[in-house]
Amino acid sequence: MAGKDPSNRFEIDLDKTPANYAPLSPVDFVERSALVHPDRTAWIYNDRQATYAEMLTRCRRFASALANLGIGPGDAVAIIAQNGPALLEAHFAVPMAGAVLNALNFRLDAPSIAFMLGHAGSKVIIVDREFTETVKQALAEHTAPITVIAIDDPDTDNDPSFGDTTYEAFLETGDADARFDPVADEWQAISLCYTSGTTGDPKGVVLHHRGAYLNAIGNGMMLGFTGQTVNLWTLPMFHCNGWCHSWGVTAFAGTHVLLRKVDPAKIFELIAGHNVTHMSGAPIVLNMILNAPKELRRAFPQTITMATGGAAPPSAVISGMGELGFKIVHLYGLTETYGPALIAAEQDDWADKSPDELSAVMARQGLRHPMVADYMVADPDTMQPVPADGETIGEIMLRGNTVMRGYLMNPTATHRDLAEGWFHSGDLGVMHPDGYIQVKDRSKDIIISGGENISSLEVEDTLYKHPAVMEAGVVARDDAKWGESPCAFVTLKPDADTTDAADIVAFCRDHMAHFKAPKTIVYGPLPKTATGKIQKFALRERANNLADGEADFDRAAG
Amino acid sequence: MAGKDPSNRFEIDLDKTPANYAPLSPVDFVERSALVHPDRTAWIYNDRQATYAEMLTRCRRFASALANLGIGPGDAVAIIAQNGPALLEAHFAVPMAGAVLNALNFRLDAPSIAFMLGHAGSKVIIVDREFTETVKQALAEHTAPITVIAIDDPDTDNDPSFGDTTYEAFLETGDADARFDPVADEWQAISLCYTSGTTGDPKGVVLHHRGAYLNAIGNGMMLGFTGQTVNLWTLPMFHCNGWCHSWGVTAFAGTHVLLRKVDPAKIFELIAGHNVTHMSGAPIVLNMILNAPKELRRAFPQTITMATGGAAPPSAVISGMGELGFKIVHLYGLTETYGPALIAAEQDDWADKSPDELSAVMARQGLRHPMVADYMVADPDTMQPVPADGETIGEIMLRGNTVMRGYLMNPTATHRDLAEGWFHSGDLGVMHPDGYIQVKDRSKDIIISGGENISSLEVEDTLYKHPAVMEAGVVARDDAKWGESPCAFVTLKPDADTTDAADIVAFCRDHMAHFKAPKTIVYGPLPKTATGKIQKFALRERANNLADGEADFDRAAG
Repeated sequence: MAGKDPSNRFEIDLDKTPANYAPLSPVDFVERSALVHPDRTAWIYNDRQATYAEMLTRCRRFASALANLGIGPGDAVAIIAQNGPALLEAHFAVPMAGAVLNALNFRLDAPSIAFMLGHAGSKVIIVDREFTETVKQALAEHTAPITVIAIDDPDTDNDPSFGDTTYEAFLETGDADARFDPVADEWQAISLCYTSGTTGDPKGVVLHHRGAYLNAIGNGMMLGFTGQTVNLWTLPMFHCNGWCHSWGVTAFAGTHVLLRKVDPAKIFELIAGHNVTHMSGAPIVLNMILNAPKELRRAFPQTITMATGGAAPPSAVISGMGELGFKIVHLYGLTETYGPALIAAEQDDWADKSPDELSAVMARQGLRHPMVADYMVADPDTMQPVPADGETIGEIMLRGNTVMRGYLMNPTATHRDLAEGWFHSGDLGVMHPDGYIQVKDRSKDIIISGGENISSLEVEDTLYKHPAVMEAGVVARDDAKWGESPCAFVTLKPDADTTDAADIVAFCRDHMAHFKAPKTIVYGPLPKTATGKIQKFALRERANNLADGEADFDRAAG
Repeated sequence: MAGKDPSNRFEIDLDKTPANYAPLSPVDFVERSALVHPDRTAWIYNDRQATYAEMLTRCRRFASALANLGIGPGDAVAIIAQNGPALLEAHFAVPMAGAVLNALNFRLDAPSIAFMLGHAGSKVIIVDREFTETVKQALAEHTAPITVIAIDDPDTDNDPSFGDTTYEAFLETGDADARFDPVADEWQAISLCYTSGTTGDPKGVVLHHRGAYLNAIGNGMMLGFTGQTVNLWTLPMFHCNGWCHSWGVTAFAGTHVLLRKVDPAKIFELIAGHNVTHMSGAPIVLNMILNAPKELRRAFPQTITMATGGAAPPSAVISGMGELGFKIVHLYGLTETYGPALIAAEQDDWADKSPDELSAVMARQGLRHPMVADYMVADPDTMQPVPADGETIGEIMLRGNTVMRGYLMNPTATHRDLAEGWFHSGDLGVMHPDGYIQVKDRSKDIIISGGENISSLEVEDTLYKHPAVMEAGVVARDDAKWGESPCAFVTLKPDADTTDAADIVAFCRDHMAHFKAPKTIVYGPLPKTATGKIQKFALRERANNLADGEADFDRAAG
């Protein structure tokens, strides 16, 4: 509260009271949507569905059952699950009980899960039976008391004996009439998300009620959520709370169509069956849809807004998806920013652009999200913004209510990444004259060859333009002459014409500075994180363990 | 911040920093919209218009010019103006400079204005030349130093010599490159609005940055604002900051079409010319549009969402406006709640309802606004909610971030109206089983006749159903036999068939309990506030000064 300057009449006898101040919390979204649209479908999952009134009742039972176990503020509740009702409802019920949701990446191995359960001090873990074996192994290592709730789902059939109870039975133990006080402080932790995909111990990103509330609504403002929104979950909801769409779609009383696994046939079926309006996902999801066999595709009358992060969508993807009925929105964000933090906002004149022109402007990650207070590309040493010339590389920095509280029990990393009033993203980029940021690389993904910086992302963008390339990952390979040189790992399209490394290298040299063209081409599938990001660290390891000439042998695998 | 429980790992080393906390302020809306859509039209006013980049520059000059005068936190800036660029820009520039905007009702008399300037301690007043004479008189009474800025507008031509400077010249004195720190505390006052329309000294409602930010966005969520929103200003923007639409339309980078005066010909011209998507206004605006001569009307392809407050829209208005291309949304709110606080949210099955059925459900004021934390109809003595039976009358109570800080320098009224954790609206209503509140009356507008409560609103609703009635206001008249009896003041439609008081009374008796039918009918124009509300206190005074039989004489005036 502002200082009580006795000469300032606007600061006297005008204090906060319970009548005029309420902490912001996404728990309110399910409560209000159940009040305003009780009969509207909240979620659809295979043959099951729930209205908002039903979903609220289930969340109240869930929260009440957690409270019966003694779960409350300061306690973490872990969940490891594919997209489904339990994971969605946990986003409301766990904070309703005052606790912290820790949705785990289901591709984690047992030692990582054991580490996270211990680090978070989770008192409960909710387990999709698909992951029973891994969780069993994790619980052999993590021996602190923990209640195990198994999700009963006809789609999974592993070991029904596992777990202290099942999800639906657990809900039955809760009181449908239970009422919980709103969170006392909007700064209270709502969610813990471990960052994955890099080496070293995972860091636990702590998010709060205020930020989750605001980011959820800001996403809706950006993507045009309304009460008619039907969001098909092609994004894993464990991934940064589904970019806050778990909360955001609910805030607008839209409908969640829950999808366990990204399967093009199922996606087209659900789009046609449920009048889907919105989707989000990694670039790989776009590729899967675009490369789906024609017999799996279905035509639909609506236009679907599809948000994607990570790599810039190539022009062929933008135009191909456009022909199928998808409007692509390019976003940028990190777990530390509750998901979306930049958006390549569509300008009024983009409708007139060719696919190539559109691809060029959409390749930029964009402008600040409505809830990001400020952003810049700056020299991390001086904290001075780089010139907005589209060329000078600096670190992307963000500030605002949708930046994490910090890393759990890791003050060193927290203070480092939130130093000097800015969140240091670790991503390198440039600022264009129109204020759009373009990511050039992760700091550690820059290749320094003969003293020149090469953006691995730029090399990848060029590779994606080659007609035969489906996916590409570029990393530094130690090079006796140049220090480092670009090494490209490439997957070809199933129906691609025959091509060879020399052809691809020549294509790159035709489309970018010669020194940036890859010196090594390796064919084969790319290792990926659960969210579809290419695991650069694995590629780096592989690049530096290639036997001389191995790349040539690998060529045959293409 | 939550208490630092040392056993709660989620409260350790996870504090607020400038990187992860930013006060919410609507000033950000114009800054972000100018960043994201610099070339989009921000406002249109007669032959002038400004892009968002231009509007931001003008706001920065305006704020800089205010700062040059020494205006900052704790200072009020008054403005008395019809809708126009100065009033819109003041909503951003005044808080940008850290000061408090006090938009005055332009229908106020000079003594009221003088009182408000003194009460708020305004250092600056910006004056629409249409109101020069009144302001001159006010400044003869209010002799404290004040800078007078006259708005230069070809539409007004009163006394160009009045004022220390003109609005455009004042902007020129400001620095377009000036940058202002965001407000230090989101609880800081942003706006002061005097409540009008009742007797007694006006009360100054103090609103803050956080509430204005949230209400603006919540309105957009309710009414479906997007970047394509074009809002035609048929609502006076001085009225509770235009229900926060001044900020809300800007938050979504929509376009403001500024209208000085509600004139049906102009309204249809602007709708057709600018692809208007949204309007708001008092019921009288709907009546004016609906009763506009056919030659003034223009067809338009879009559907306009038109929000209205105050009296429930009768079925003839809903269906008539529907035929013209307007979708009516019924809201309820007060200055103390930043405008909209309840919404008669459209249910998915309303599309199938007949106009009469629709009118019945839309007659209710509705469910809580997205940013209202809670609402109830309660007995003000016990604070217990009344049964949700649609019949038991209680006082409408609201709580949340969009309830005012309080009344300026009036702690008695502040503590009374914010007592016991709720804002006491002073309005009486019922709670329906589906959670919709229906307003029955202002506390003081209940007529107690023979010991029975009669809702003046209910009598008015019945009168509005009479085919000849254009407007109606019902108040209590002292009655020797019954204590009080309902007295109706009625304006007939210009083209109404001849009717008389007996006919109207008979119509009322046919459509409601006999004891509720008015005992007196008085014809003639109704006194109204600037926002189109019927001034009940004036009618009450008149009702009790009617000579015996005067009502009969007045009949001739119909």
